[in-house]
Amino acid sequence: MANNFTKTSVKDAGRVELHDALSLTGAEVSINALPAGASVPFVHAHKQNEEIYGILDGAGRAEIDGEVVPLAAGDWLRISPSAKRRFFAGEESGIRYICIQVKENSLASYTAQDAIIG
Amino acid sequence: MANNFTKTSVKDAGRVELHDALSLTGAEVSINALPAGASVPFVHAHKQNEEIYGILDGAGRAEIDGEVVPLAAGDWLRISPSAKRRFFAGEESGIRYICIQVKENSLASYTAQDAIIG
Repeated sequence: MANNFTKTSVKDAGRVELHDALSLTGAEVSINALPAGASVPFVHAHKQNEEIYGILDGAGRAEIDGEVVPLAAGDWLRISPSAKRRFFAGEESGIRYICIQVKENSLASYTAQDAIIG
Repeated sequence: MANNFTKTSVKDAGRVELHDALSLTGAEVSINALPAGASVPFVHAHKQNEEIYGILDGAGRAEIDGEVVPLAAGDWLRISPSAKRRFFAGEESGIRYICIQVKENSLASYTAQDAIIG
């Protein structure tokens, strides 16, 4: 496959990481799934990376610096590097979500300012 | 809301851009939908930004530097800045997808190397 693009296909699974599969250079993207009653078994923060979470299916909650944030499909979050975070599925609902890691303040311009049309 | 996180909720719509809604600093993320038979009405490339596309629902195709790439739910693509791209829904299926714009080569480290546990 030429260097102009890479492609992969993600089947439903516990966690899939796309950085190496797609040769990403500006982000890590993972697809994550927790069954009902489950949680990521640790709290974490980041050194440099902003995280962006998008809830695909189901429901649950995040705990961010001690604040409980209810989550349902269609919700999106930005979390600052230093915030301590942990994710939980609902008691009676699993949750599936995308997590995007990017270096904080790395975006210079975007959309119309970065585009070349035609 | 404190600076440690921001949250928004996306309802089904034609296109939603999250950069300003979430105060993103390392990416622009958009959620896009094309009805059956529709397409983005132009070809575009980028100056600095790598794009990462994830197909949420439906089917369609991308044309990347003249190559036809079939797309279905669960497919993910990385497209280099200079590649000329255009997205199409299927003739009989709409398509819904995420587009992530990040600055090429901006990611320094990620996951375990960037994480602080506990």
